[in-house]
Amino acid sequence: MSGTAAGARIDLNADLGEANGGVPVADDEAMIALISSANIACGFHSGDARTMRAATSAAARRGVAVGAHVAYRDQAGFGRRFIDYDPEELADEVLYQIGALDAIARSQGTRVGYVKPHGALYNAIVKNREQARAVVAGVRAFSDLPIVLLPGGVAIEEAENAGLTVVREAFADRGYTPEGTLVPRGKPGDLLDGADAVTERVLGLASSGTVTAVDGSVVDVAADSICVHGDSPDSVAMTEAIVKALDEAGVELRPAVGA
Amino acid sequence: MSGTAAGARIDLNADLGEANGGVPVADDEAMIALISSANIACGFHSGDARTMRAATSAAARRGVAVGAHVAYRDQAGFGRRFIDYDPEELADEVLYQIGALDAIARSQGTRVGYVKPHGALYNAIVKNREQARAVVAGVRAFSDLPIVLLPGGVAIEEAENAGLTVVREAFADRGYTPEGTLVPRGKPGDLLDGADAVTERVLGLASSGTVTAVDGSVVDVAADSICVHGDSPDSVAMTEAIVKALDEAGVELRPAVGA
Amino acid sequence: MSGTAAGARIDLNADLGEANGGVPVADDEAMIALISSANIACGFHSGDARTMRAATSAAARRGVAVGAHVAYRDQAGFGRRFIDYDPEELADEVLYQIGALDAIARSQGTRVGYVKPHGALYNAIVKNREQARAVVAGVRAFSDLPIVLLPGGVAIEEAENAGLTVVREAFADRGYTPEGTLVPRGKPGDLLDGADAVTERVLGLASSGTVTAVDGSVVDVAADSICVHGDSPDSVAMTEAIVKALDEAGVELRPAVGA
Amino acid sequence: MSGTAAGARIDLNADLGEANGGVPVADDEAMIALISSANIACGFHSGDARTMRAATSAAARRGVAVGAHVAYRDQAGFGRRFIDYDPEELADEVLYQIGALDAIARSQGTRVGYVKPHGALYNAIVKNREQARAVVAGVRAFSDLPIVLLPGGVAIEEAENAGLTVVREAFADRGYTPEGTLVPRGKPGDLLDGADAVTERVLGLASSGTVTAVDGSVVDVAADSICVHGDSPDSVAMTEAIVKALDEAGVELRPAVGA
Repeated sequence: MSGTAAGARIDLNADLGEANGGVPVADDEAMIALISSANIACGFHSGDARTMRAATSAAARRGVAVGAHVAYRDQAGFGRRFIDYDPEELADEVLYQIGALDAIARSQGTRVGYVKPHGALYNAIVKNREQARAVVAGVRAFSDLPIVLLPGGVAIEEAENAGLTVVREAFADRGYTPEGTLVPRGKPGDLLDGADAVTERVLGLASSGTVTAVDGSVVDVAADSICVHGDSPDSVAMTEAIVKALDEAGVELRPAVGA
Repeated sequence: MSGTAAGARIDLNADLGEANGGVPVADDEAMIALISSANIACGFHSGDARTMRAATSAAARRGVAVGAHVAYRDQAGFGRRFIDYDPEELADEVLYQIGALDAIARSQGTRVGYVKPHGALYNAIVKNREQARAVVAGVRAFSDLPIVLLPGGVAIEEAENAGLTVVREAFADRGYTPEGTLVPRGKPGDLLDGADAVTERVLGLASSGTVTAVDGSVVDVAADSICVHGDSPDSVAMTEAIVKALDEAGVELRPAVGA
Repeated sequence: MSGTAAGARIDLNADLGEANGGVPVADDEAMIALISSANIACGFHSGDARTMRAATSAAARRGVAVGAHVAYRDQAGFGRRFIDYDPEELADEVLYQIGALDAIARSQGTRVGYVKPHGALYNAIVKNREQARAVVAGVRAFSDLPIVLLPGGVAIEEAENAGLTVVREAFADRGYTPEGTLVPRGKPGDLLDGADAVTERVLGLASSGTVTAVDGSVVDVAADSICVHGDSPDSVAMTEAIVKALDEAGVELRPAVGA
Repeated sequence: MSGTAAGARIDLNADLGEANGGVPVADDEAMIALISSANIACGFHSGDARTMRAATSAAARRGVAVGAHVAYRDQAGFGRRFIDYDPEELADEVLYQIGALDAIARSQGTRVGYVKPHGALYNAIVKNREQARAVVAGVRAFSDLPIVLLPGGVAIEEAENAGLTVVREAFADRGYTPEGTLVPRGKPGDLLDGADAVTERVLGLASSGTVTAVDGSVVDVAADSICVHGDSPDSVAMTEAIVKALDEAGVELRPAVGA
């Protein structure tokens, strides 16, 4: 897909459906009332069937698109560490997760509309072509669902070669380099500071397809969807501020895909 | 469904798709070449996406019906110990398992044709009405799939009340009481001894709908499907003997449902 | 042990070391600075080696007693649902958990000083004698550690018959019946409302060994340790209020056992 | 430790205590009756408390040394795939596993006498210095136990620098290159063919510290312990043949460490 540069609409997505011992970590219901696309954990890095049902139910009621937030099988590590999977098995496990979430989503009157890899898998397939191919193969074994990816990686090549719609993702609260890549976590400027900076970031992405990098330069970042955090104590308040700013700017909130 | 008493055909099912660290426990491929219905583990008591794919692939090639062998989430206990689930969560987890297996089955050109509860769950819902309802609710949340159950329990009432087709199951190698119930494991006569006894049992079930009980009496056991073991060292040889005997007796092997 | 009725000291314990994907759920460090005994999750219902290390390290620095918060193996259910374990296996799993935590505790300069069963296991062994015996056997297989139990159950009989020191537990924020048992969760009066009520409860237990029941009657509750919650947003503030009130009343905070 | 070149004794070790849903995979009891050192799974790649107890009980009765077969936390992958652990967390998890097994071993009258990393972890620390250091740190946090390692890797440097006794391991049935390294699995000559070849290999290692490589050349392989397989159908018969040949050659079977 092309960027949203000239558009008067944008997609806000958040990682939800995460749970600890059956209890949701975030206020999924409140977040889903604000955003347009919900990436729902499928039980591999977090989440469980009950939390998936509650989240897909809320998404169905709100007209929010449901994404399968597929991950390495690693609850202990929250899917945040690279695992050297056999690619064929990785494809199988991606398919398993999509199928499980889709069955639950359909029982609530919606369906899986797209796929977003989580955590270490999301990062690995920027460069790891074998795993990128495996993820694409797992998605296609289900159906040709759109896939949410970080701009600039080999996963985008593999997904587009396979005919999948790619949703390029930007981040509401991460620092960007002048080259348009993310400032690594732990480095100066890795995270934006405060609601004003985050709101300005989202408005810039929605209205002109640009971000202000850590050095002050303005960089083109073609993004189809913007990820907001759902799991910190101030997530709901921050997202409310973003949504209000978008509304005042006349930017429509709408799922990029899968609605 | 009614019994097979007068029929010249019978369904043989086996519990397959079980794996240990990614390696199948049984010779799934050889068993699926012999039977008519494969109950495939969905990752909760055993199994994983790769093993599920291999088993559904074999079933698709052989025209064998695919059953979702749904279980409590308890790999450590192999689904063999009762867990006091919240019923709503149990329904969700049944649905999750069916959806995961169905996605994999469809990628192999087949689909989930029925559901069979596993182990402690299978036994619990003979008497536990809350969990029986939960299993039925989980199945129906997917679609009105047939369900394989032990004759005589409350689960059959709940399934039939909900409009599900019930497949009544008998066992090729378990001892029966004069009342038509199973001899508890560990009691004298709990298991049939040797291929001749097992073959005779299957022929009796297939031709006249009867079993010879531990006291020598002949008992009616209306069964739509007969469970053979898939995971012991002599499972394949035993099943070959059964299939040969059925063939010589002119009994056709055919899935009860879901083909 | 006898109650604390006339004593000028009391033990405050809290359930800590719980983690979600490697991230602690509670502010373990802050809680451990306030209480005298830390019940640390051992990885079965929650927790992991890293969180166990951090919690035992804090306990060692603060002179807080370390308890093994042993549980059914059920992260998905947070150890909150009954599992019908084989008793011998339950004993083995209790021993496994104590050993794992003790190794980590010793690496931080402390050790496991007592055992407290968690969640559904804690409740089950009030009445389930087989599992009560299994827990006691698992503890004794490690060494004759004290065990924290709900007053009035068969577990206390089994523990005392086996020669273990029993720490009777009361709850800072649960409602009590006139008979001295807990008001079941979900019933009116199941939870005390507000810091004043909780503080008054703790002072009553510490100074006179009594609680005010839901009907206003005063009931003797011989308790050696009082459980405060560690995992709600206001846990630290609530515990600070309790500790301040105890200090003002001249009640010394001291581990019941295991220091 | 130095090799066994001139010795009239050798250590045979096997990977045991692996289980599937609570059922041991190998005939642990029969294998432990034959070997001198048992590497027992600690529940992370396989195994559970009950299987650990049975294996340590057999080891205690037979005077066989008990090793903690520590692994990545990955039952689904049987510890056979690399996981990019945070090193500090890896150390914690190694310590957790040793502590759990040691508690169980002590309840059976023995103790953990050494540590052997399993699978992908064993292979990773040949080259991955961070993880090698983490394993060594985890061992030392318990106590200065000996560690079984593949000759030639950075893990040996790290272990020896830390003052740990290193047990160099050779393999009874793996092919060797002329350089003394293992022929990678899947390459021609990766596995020895038949009992004669395996027996000859063990005798060569025990009597002269040499192996015959795939090209027929004779290579020095200083080994303190020889790994035999415990989990294939013919493991017991193969190990019986090895033990008989060693006995006839006058080679004594004795634990390298930890007895």
